[in-house]
Amino acid sequence: MSTSARAPRILDRATEQRIREGIRRQTLLTTLGISIAELAVGRVMLDLPYRADLCQQNGYVHAGAITALADSACGYAAASLMPEDRDVLTVEFKINLLAPARGDRFRATGEVIRAGRTLTVCSAEVVAWADDIAGNPEVSLVRVALMQATMMAVTPPAS
Amino acid sequence: MSTSARAPRILDRATEQRIREGIRRQTLLTTLGISIAELAVGRVMLDLPYRADLCQQNGYVHAGAITALADSACGYAAASLMPEDRDVLTVEFKINLLAPARGDRFRATGEVIRAGRTLTVCSAEVVAWADDIAGNPEVSLVRVALMQATMMAVTPPAS
Amino acid sequence: MSTSARAPRILDRATEQRIREGIRRQTLLTTLGISIAELAVGRVMLDLPYRADLCQQNGYVHAGAITALADSACGYAAASLMPEDRDVLTVEFKINLLAPARGDRFRATGEVIRAGRTLTVCSAEVVAWADDIAGNPEVSLVRVALMQATMMAVTPPAS
Amino acid sequence: MSTSARAPRILDRATEQRIREGIRRQTLLTTLGISIAELAVGRVMLDLPYRADLCQQNGYVHAGAITALADSACGYAAASLMPEDRDVLTVEFKINLLAPARGDRFRATGEVIRAGRTLTVCSAEVVAWADDIAGNPEVSLVRVALMQATMMAVTPPAS
Repeated sequence: MSTSARAPRILDRATEQRIREGIRRQTLLTTLGISIAELAVGRVMLDLPYRADLCQQNGYVHAGAITALADSACGYAAASLMPEDRDVLTVEFKINLLAPARGDRFRATGEVIRAGRTLTVCSAEVVAWADDIAGNPEVSLVRVALMQATMMAVTPPAS
Repeated sequence: MSTSARAPRILDRATEQRIREGIRRQTLLTTLGISIAELAVGRVMLDLPYRADLCQQNGYVHAGAITALADSACGYAAASLMPEDRDVLTVEFKINLLAPARGDRFRATGEVIRAGRTLTVCSAEVVAWADDIAGNPEVSLVRVALMQATMMAVTPPAS
Repeated sequence: MSTSARAPRILDRATEQRIREGIRRQTLLTTLGISIAELAVGRVMLDLPYRADLCQQNGYVHAGAITALADSACGYAAASLMPEDRDVLTVEFKINLLAPARGDRFRATGEVIRAGRTLTVCSAEVVAWADDIAGNPEVSLVRVALMQATMMAVTPPAS
Repeated sequence: MSTSARAPRILDRATEQRIREGIRRQTLLTTLGISIAELAVGRVMLDLPYRADLCQQNGYVHAGAITALADSACGYAAASLMPEDRDVLTVEFKINLLAPARGDRFRATGEVIRAGRTLTVCSAEVVAWADDIAGNPEVSLVRVALMQATMMAVTPPAS
């Protein structure tokens, strides 16, 4: 829980490239409109802007979309610490939905809690933001979700 | 775990109506292509057909989409046992991804484990299916996910 | 969830021996009074009799003791399917407490949901029982807990 | 995750009294040797000294004891923010075991992430410590566990 206090180190260019490429290849992330806000060693921030077609019955963003966002932030945080020839798989996660996902934008910060050779434990929080008039995040509103996840390093299938 | 053994009771028409209407109002479910396979008292089955724009990097359906499916099955299983003036919120869930989500269709079965006045505990499993030539589920292939979830009955916001 | 329906296969003597020995070496289990009710391939049942020194503030057995029971049932269910030279470690679990742990005895049934080479996913339920006059379990009362757990096969430290 | 950064406020005497009394009434905590290290508003630290009768097969403290410690720290962190006439129940939790519980003492820090009228979400981490020659915690060694928990405020049963 004290991890946030450490200033995260900047990713080397090759790892950053690898992560950007990985995100591009996940078609669900494009479908949902998820993009990168910030990449660092062991810490990844992803954004999901509000869209009316991602909602639950009351017009807030659906827990399923928030979960996909948080899971991806955890996965890439784990990937940022792995050798380049490994793929990262989600073994499992648990998420608490803390408040309705109301806002212009939802930002997930995924952090590595413990990196092992095979398994990496991460946590993520998702915060709702209000954007300014130009569509940039301006004010953080409320924490909407907290996730604790287990990721696994695997050898990617031969392509 | 022995819940599956009991033959589920058929939903009364009003509750079925209410659940169908609720699913229609969740725009994310339409965006992902989730539909109802079967509704019963305390047990809901939902389908997610494979789509190339819902995948992770290896072409399997993304854990985020599988999770949205399982969460929805749990939520509506809980809703099927609640009075008509209550809304159901996901408090939290935990999901294990058991196998790559490879197949033509993914079917989540959500079941109520314990229904309380405020909180309802559910579990869901998601199974991959191969469809027949007409696009109907024919063969169940493998269990791809297992979820355990806590749902809460709330008074819906006045509209 | 349909696993319970299959009749579990009897453990071979060597594996049974290994599990009994493993349980004996876990001093916490002796301290809490946990014993074996039944061992099968991929399914382990453990008992925890009520004791006044294992309670929470209202005189029911404490969630911590129920959790240790369920975790152990999962761990040995996983161990029953592993080669004899591997140790089993709990990676993580999630437990829902469903009802106050009131009764003479608490029986956890741990089952393997998916056995992998490295990771095994299990679930366990804990049921409260009333004993007969001779101290044997007679009537199952209520399900008090449901657990979903991830176990890992490791090479035991050289002794 | 940024909660740790805030200096916790000191508990008023009545709430502190109530929590100390609550811990005394949980016989399992006495049986395991759990004691209070520090109490603050929304944050509770509990200690579990190593004992040979609380171990798993390799001589480390058992996950079950670590879990009871973390769950209690979460529960009392939640209780510290509740009105005096409410009892706190554990609805569910998820715990990752991060490293073998090797050390002289295990300290759980439970913190409130979000306090609601009915439900309170907490997280806890457990750190292993080496004691000095006088038996006081001297050096923190490693984080051994991370928990995310949901607690519920209930009206205590009439006594």
